Amino acid sequence: MRAVGVLGGMGPAATLDFLTKVLAADPAPKEQDKIRILVDCNPGVLDRNAAARGEGPSPGPALAEMARGLVAAGADFLVIACNTAHAWAGDIAAAVDAPLISMIEAACETIAAAHPRARRIGLLAGQGCLDAQIYQSAFERRGWQAVIPPADLQAGFMSALYSVKAGSLDAAEKAAFMACAEAVIAAGAEIAIAGCTEVPLLLTAADLPVPLIDPTQILAERTVAFARG
Amino acid sequence: MRAVGVLGGMGPAATLDFLTKVLAADPAPKEQDKIRILVDCNPGVLDRNAAARGEGPSPGPALAEMARGLVAAGADFLVIACNTAHAWAGDIAAAVDAPLISMIEAACETIAAAHPRARRIGLLAGQGCLDAQIYQSAFERRGWQAVIPPADLQAGFMSALYSVKAGSLDAAEKAAFMACAEAVIAAGAEIAIAGCTEVPLLLTAADLPVPLIDPTQILAERTVAFARG
Repeated sequence: MRAVGVLGGMGPAATLDFLTKVLAADPAPKEQDKIRILVDCNPGVLDRNAAARGEGPSPGPALAEMARGLVAAGADFLVIACNTAHAWAGDIAAAVDAPLISMIEAACETIAAAHPRARRIGLLAGQGCLDAQIYQSAFERRGWQAVIPPADLQAGFMSALYSVKAGSLDAAEKAAFMACAEAVIAAGAEIAIAGCTEVPLLLTAADLPVPLIDPTQILAERTVAFARG
Repeated sequence: MRAVGVLGGMGPAATLDFLTKVLAADPAPKEQDKIRILVDCNPGVLDRNAAARGEGPSPGPALAEMARGLVAAGADFLVIACNTAHAWAGDIAAAVDAPLISMIEAACETIAAAHPRARRIGLLAGQGCLDAQIYQSAFERRGWQAVIPPADLQAGFMSALYSVKAGSLDAAEKAAFMACAEAVIAAGAEIAIAGCTEVPLLLTAADLPVPLIDPTQILAERTVAFARG
């Protein structure tokens, strides 16, 4: 069994959602047989969206320090419970030898396996994630096209995102996420990705007329499978 | 701000409950201003109940190793998200210099402040916690009397406890916890303590005719207060 190290706190509620999904995905019935999970829920990681648009310092050094600490505490491999922070995966790889399971690649592999004919993928993600081209690069390698909400709805998404991070999970925030989902579907998206870990706190597959891919859930399942060897 | 290190995984669902309560207790509205939480959710810690009755090896060395790892990862102080594991607090204190906030003492201090005239305290706890006299010792120093369920109901409590740890949070488990609560109240308990972190997953204050003290909630509030300095 391998112990997972979770770079979390971006935001804290999204990390709890990830941990809940890991625990649900672990098939071991007995407490002592479940996987070991080390978590650094570090809300002090600098704002990824500001850094991605060039208006703030890099969160890379903080993420690298967290990775080193998790490995020192016993982690055998790492995951990041934040899509946008994957833009600094290079800082983590430079800091530790432990492998990092990419939530982005895991989500794309699941789409390729479950929806092999999909070509237009709706992207519900933070502006920093869009700016850093995290999902778009992974899509391009597979011949897929990213469908992104129009700027005004994306701005509403970002306001809602910061509200959710601050603890508000209400109808207004869900409506802002839904407006983006509806816009990308109207623009031809055959699938939508909850490409920000705050999105699945409010949107579920039942809310949309197209499949909703939840990278948090996919990463949780991958984490348990890799930990159990 | 001080970072907390959580010795968890005993069991995993109880640790998630603790983390949820910490997050809810943190007043900071902005992600970057919340407290840092390092967690070792290590279900591999040996069975505390078996060790307390002398039928299993000590979980102390594993707890000490977790404490060292959490401090190495950046924790400034420690908490244990398990009542029974407090029996091995000495192993942790011997391993690290970081202070440990005791869930047992925090719960007793809250009782003394909120219910100064209470003398008979009902104890809903794992057998290992009872065997190790963890709460009973703390009560004696305050002149309180522990009221413990009869052996047959305590045996039912233990069966339910292992079911909850295995992921079953159903009416049968709640009924077993309730039967113990009703028995200690019938025997004169003026207050009941949810002295096992699995208990508040199923029992709430609204279920009982006397106050129910939730050490998980009290420890979460103490954790946030100590972290914020």
